[in-house]
Amino acid sequence: MLGPAMAAITEQEARRLWKEADAVCFDVDSTVIREEGCDELARFLGKAEEVAELTRRAMSGAMEFREALRLRLELLRPSHADVSRFTSQLPLNVSPGISELVQKLHSRGVKVFLVSGGFHCLIRPIAAALNIPAENITANKLLFDFFGNYAGFDESQPTSASGGKARALQRLIDEHKLRCLAMVGDGATDLEAAPPAHVFIGYGGNVVRPKVQEAAPWFVHHFQELIDALSESG
Amino acid sequence: MLGPAMAAITEQEARRLWKEADAVCFDVDSTVIREEGCDELARFLGKAEEVAELTRRAMSGAMEFREALRLRLELLRPSHADVSRFTSQLPLNVSPGISELVQKLHSRGVKVFLVSGGFHCLIRPIAAALNIPAENITANKLLFDFFGNYAGFDESQPTSASGGKARALQRLIDEHKLRCLAMVGDGATDLEAAPPAHVFIGYGGNVVRPKVQEAAPWFVHHFQELIDALSESG
Repeated sequence: MLGPAMAAITEQEARRLWKEADAVCFDVDSTVIREEGCDELARFLGKAEEVAELTRRAMSGAMEFREALRLRLELLRPSHADVSRFTSQLPLNVSPGISELVQKLHSRGVKVFLVSGGFHCLIRPIAAALNIPAENITANKLLFDFFGNYAGFDESQPTSASGGKARALQRLIDEHKLRCLAMVGDGATDLEAAPPAHVFIGYGGNVVRPKVQEAAPWFVHHFQELIDALSESG
Repeated sequence: MLGPAMAAITEQEARRLWKEADAVCFDVDSTVIREEGCDELARFLGKAEEVAELTRRAMSGAMEFREALRLRLELLRPSHADVSRFTSQLPLNVSPGISELVQKLHSRGVKVFLVSGGFHCLIRPIAAALNIPAENITANKLLFDFFGNYAGFDESQPTSASGGKARALQRLIDEHKLRCLAMVGDGATDLEAAPPAHVFIGYGGNVVRPKVQEAAPWFVHHFQELIDALSESG
């Protein structure tokens, strides 16, 4: 499981990089928020079972991320009105401590980014609530025709493809000339985004994925641990 | 200029096919309406000159239709709000006699379709005014993200590519099992759509394109001529 770059990092080293980071990138689904946005949207549209079944098939087989995304969206075909109703009911909940953590990072001048295989339009209200600028979100964009019908997704977004988070992070590093970018998330795709991220920190506050926990140089169960670590001396 | 199928058709034959047609397909820009929708949208957005220059380059060179469309739209990047404001001001005018002609065709049980390289969202209000069902429009679809930003166009529409009108008409013939489809338009792409259309009738009420006039078996300057021809005996 351990990639060559990760294998070399101890928890102590990960903690040092965390304190030195000039930017932090958070995964969104099951990390910044407690839920999986796409699953909640599916539930809202009365298609939770069909989407869950498709997700199981995608994860067990060799299906490309983009193909799995396309199939799930074809099942849902969410209209602009569907998404509007969904987001207006604010059905997504942020994880405990994330607001305080983002505030702390901002107060230290650390840039905060969100990178997600989920949907930009569901993440933007969450980013706004956390004072993260909309331009710091990299996520998939749902498309609509003039009349608000579902019309696909923006396939030019790096996050719409397998390995997309790593490409998205490399782009952030290049564009913002980041010296030390920390990636925080719960999933395998987050783990795989370091490198290019300089350090990966696993988060298990909503769901613990054993393979991620095993491979992460540092694994936390509450964001308070990350807040506390910023204040530690040494 | 004359294709093999067209060469065999005389004006007399074209008039006979016109009376026998079980479906008529009209081009939109400079045919059903007096203007070119995309040019008017460009003017509305203050970019008439840039788009006209690009259109000239596209027509003089070997640029594919889809590439020319992409470049013009990248210049305009029309937001949902832009298009809403444009259509709410009803800046497009139908050609004289088209309402009466469509009404006459409908009264005879002839299906009426619109096929255009222009934009579905600009054509739909025109179709509604002519009592043509929205599903009888084949045209390019502008796409927007959830926040109404321009996000490209639907590249799966046949009309987004060179030779697209012919493909769109073949699809109509197959889907509706049409015996005799007449294509009416002012442009070279309309002429090229017959075959599969069973007859092409050139229309020069807004602009006369000499090559189209020359190649068309029948060329009219006013839709009244087509109305009158339906009532003729023999």
